Amino acid sequence: MRVGGAPVEFWFELASTYSYVAALRVEEAARDRGVPLVWKPFLLGPLFRRQGWSDSPFNLYPARGRYMWRDLERQCARHGFPFRKPTRFPRNSLLAARVAIAASEETWLPEFARAVYRANFAEDREIEEPAVLEGILASLGLSPGPLLDRARSDGNKERLRAQTEEAWTRGIFGAPSFLVDGELFWGNDRMEEALDWHLAGGGGER
Amino acid sequence: MRVGGAPVEFWFELASTYSYVAALRVEEAARDRGVPLVWKPFLLGPLFRRQGWSDSPFNLYPARGRYMWRDLERQCARHGFPFRKPTRFPRNSLLAARVAIAASEETWLPEFARAVYRANFAEDREIEEPAVLEGILASLGLSPGPLLDRARSDGNKERLRAQTEEAWTRGIFGAPSFLVDGELFWGNDRMEEALDWHLAGGGGER
Repeated sequence: MRVGGAPVEFWFELASTYSYVAALRVEEAARDRGVPLVWKPFLLGPLFRRQGWSDSPFNLYPARGRYMWRDLERQCARHGFPFRKPTRFPRNSLLAARVAIAASEETWLPEFARAVYRANFAEDREIEEPAVLEGILASLGLSPGPLLDRARSDGNKERLRAQTEEAWTRGIFGAPSFLVDGELFWGNDRMEEALDWHLAGGGGER
Repeated sequence: MRVGGAPVEFWFELASTYSYVAALRVEEAARDRGVPLVWKPFLLGPLFRRQGWSDSPFNLYPARGRYMWRDLERQCARHGFPFRKPTRFPRNSLLAARVAIAASEETWLPEFARAVYRANFAEDREIEEPAVLEGILASLGLSPGPLLDRARSDGNKERLRAQTEEAWTRGIFGAPSFLVDGELFWGNDRMEEALDWHLAGGGGER
């Protein structure tokens, strides 16, 4: 085990089903191991388009999609997380992601992200509606108006574009993903392995 | 925990990378839990074609493919399994799958499957060549000639087609997959959950 080192990067998309499960688990899993963590919001849509998909692969490939919803239900039950299948999928996460990236240096980013996930996957709410995001921000004791203005600023839009581009450049193709000393781990199922890789100092379990 | 019940079905494709890891793990994992297991060979190619893919998605989507090879290397290291990246992927598994389905009732099926996987993913050998399969069968103390004749019989070819069709009908879209009391689990990562689902009597961990 080592102490210190670059934090494990948790790359998440606010419309992604398995990112929901990961977002509710990751802080405890990292804390249990004493592993530093940084939350990195990005957009999956542009990465899907680069792979030739105009929609979520869960919609494009129905057998895969049917399985995912059942598996997600099982994963949520396993962890005791609330789940209601959303009436629309995927929801547009652009504005929520802009708020998230504007909050990259804020301590409330994880709590905001989890609230957006719960709205989408436990409460079946329209996370693309500004009013829904305003309600979430207000529930965190924040001032929604100025934060949405900041989210919509040109510089912040560009920051989200750049972070999404960085995801692709660093090998990310899906969400959630973990980057640890340049090593990529994809999926909620790889969370523990990613955190352990950090503890092993980048050499993992090899 | 329950004793008995229908065995857990392990659906595998002999050209599939993650099926390799699963095939080397599954018997011990099932035995440790006292869970009965049945090996079900099928062909992934026809199921990929039904999803619009003319090749493995690991080849069609290069970012996903690059990640898979690295992840596979890590999984093999983690379990202490030999691995050498094959010079061709995917290899044609048709004849090997015909041998496997002809051996569905034979106790040597798992050992044959593991030998084919090792040839493909640890020794970089051409598993579509009859001579390679003959060598594997001979190494198991079997008579290759009669077995290959049986594998190539019309009735056996039809049996493989029917089992592949059954896979699709029952919701399978990738490999490895596990079917437990009608519940589908996809991927080497879901093995333990599938086996535990059996122990819980079909109600899983819910």
